[in-house]
Amino acid sequence: MVNPEQLLQTLQAEFEKHSYGENPAELYEPISYIMSLHGKRFRPLLTLLSASIYSENISAALKPAMAVEVFHNFTLMHDDIMDRAPLRRGKPTVHEKWNANTAILSGDVMLIRAYDLLLDIPKEKLRLVLERFNQTAAEVCEGQQLDMNFETRWNVTEGEYLEMIRLKTSVLLGFALELGGIIGGADEESVKLLYAAGENMGIGFQLKDDLLDVYGDPSKFGKQVGGDIIANKKTFLLIEALSKADEATKSELEKWISEPVFDAEEKINAVKAIYESLSIRSLTEQKISDYFGKGLENLRNLNIENSRKEPLLQFAQQLVEREK
Amino acid sequence: MVNPEQLLQTLQAEFEKHSYGENPAELYEPISYIMSLHGKRFRPLLTLLSASIYSENISAALKPAMAVEVFHNFTLMHDDIMDRAPLRRGKPTVHEKWNANTAILSGDVMLIRAYDLLLDIPKEKLRLVLERFNQTAAEVCEGQQLDMNFETRWNVTEGEYLEMIRLKTSVLLGFALELGGIIGGADEESVKLLYAAGENMGIGFQLKDDLLDVYGDPSKFGKQVGGDIIANKKTFLLIEALSKADEATKSELEKWISEPVFDAEEKINAVKAIYESLSIRSLTEQKISDYFGKGLENLRNLNIENSRKEPLLQFAQQLVEREK
Repeated sequence: MVNPEQLLQTLQAEFEKHSYGENPAELYEPISYIMSLHGKRFRPLLTLLSASIYSENISAALKPAMAVEVFHNFTLMHDDIMDRAPLRRGKPTVHEKWNANTAILSGDVMLIRAYDLLLDIPKEKLRLVLERFNQTAAEVCEGQQLDMNFETRWNVTEGEYLEMIRLKTSVLLGFALELGGIIGGADEESVKLLYAAGENMGIGFQLKDDLLDVYGDPSKFGKQVGGDIIANKKTFLLIEALSKADEATKSELEKWISEPVFDAEEKINAVKAIYESLSIRSLTEQKISDYFGKGLENLRNLNIENSRKEPLLQFAQQLVEREK
Repeated sequence: MVNPEQLLQTLQAEFEKHSYGENPAELYEPISYIMSLHGKRFRPLLTLLSASIYSENISAALKPAMAVEVFHNFTLMHDDIMDRAPLRRGKPTVHEKWNANTAILSGDVMLIRAYDLLLDIPKEKLRLVLERFNQTAAEVCEGQQLDMNFETRWNVTEGEYLEMIRLKTSVLLGFALELGGIIGGADEESVKLLYAAGENMGIGFQLKDDLLDVYGDPSKFGKQVGGDIIANKKTFLLIEALSKADEATKSELEKWISEPVFDAEEKINAVKAIYESLSIRSLTEQKISDYFGKGLENLRNLNIENSRKEPLLQFAQQLVEREK
């Protein structure tokens, strides 16, 4: 049976020996830098685990899996410019360490390099994979645009928010699983189920991110707990609270959102108290559980013996239970 | 015999009915905008003319030719952010009309859409075309990075400058011709000659740009004549002048370059006088003639009857003689 830990080591070794280019150094160093920031690499792992359901030989899926991770890091490099983020995984972002021009151009090359890695696919499957990748990549950009649009809107609905995170986050998880299935040799129906599993779990994953930002254990969660509340970030929790609150509660929430000067701890506690009064935590937990439940159900419905799905199911379970 | 004018009309009609996407509008409107700014479209025309040497049916080359133009406009959108350019073809640049974030993200989608258009290639040629495109695309980014690096360096050599414009401008012309050859069915040797033709003519083309900026006819040249001199842009002419000048002349040139306040006409005339004293104009014209000569020679060496090459040769001749 495949072991996610071993797959991760194989992946890391492959990333370490992979060259994105050399000259000019100003163009390629930022790529090595962002790729070395030790992301969880769970997207390419999903591809390998998905391929391993259908094939003993996962080496054919290695470079395409890396393409998914390189693409993901390209979006981080460009999103960080747009979001003016100073830090990524606790280290300076590329546009901070170098400058915005470098982050734009290095990001562009990363996207091209992702396509390079995707070419390592059998000829008869190449066009299908690229069509699916192109659609996914464009949708991720659409999600980022919607996310930016939402910054200046206060009437974002739950439906709009879920569609935004579906595009920005979950279609890439869907593609990661789909890609493994296509390379491994899954039939069309199974490929669709794998995509749906990634899509559902991706939404659950992002909602969990929103939840952990408020209710995470500070000793485990990588970012500052309450950061989204301080930044007035339109998360699932805030959107639900704004939609469920009565007039008085809504006014109080809006007061905290519009207050330019505030004590951080006081604001976090006040907003958390409002969330508490509206049962936002349990409502969010239920939603997360629903989406992950659907995703796991998609995986269970794959028409192949259970033992082959076990490693992917176990890994998916870890994503459900993550605390960071 | 194919007619470049007709091919251009076919291309324009295809561009006009092509959709890059709809929602969110903030993401896709800038793409339609930049694609509507009436570039000369000579890169996709090169692809169609190249394909027409080997095949009567150029419709197979239409979408891939459009990919070259969409890619080119993607680089313009991102380069304009990096260069803080206010205008493109006389109209506000995307980052000026919208903002830098929009120009980053719309540009990203354009690169993806270029790959979409490239998929319209017979299965057995797809990987080869994508490998060549990926290499070309990365080289264009390398050229842009070198161009930015040169902004803060005063010891750029002729060789370094020629390599920069080879990457930034001419490899895409090489690819445009190569692409048409591959789709049309040219043999490997001819495909290499087509690439070399584009590469050589691309360098000639960029040097001509440098020349026209100083010696162009203001009534024909699209940009302000002398604009590069005013901006101290490191063109072929300036690099040659700095390398050929004696100490006294070099000092005078450097004085004009470092002067923060100056009368534009006076500066242009002074720098032109220095160019004149060093025969920079004829030296540049000779270099342009050399590169176009090599490019046309590459085309003449194609192993096929002359009548088939005639439309491409005539079109290339127009590029040599252009005054804008």
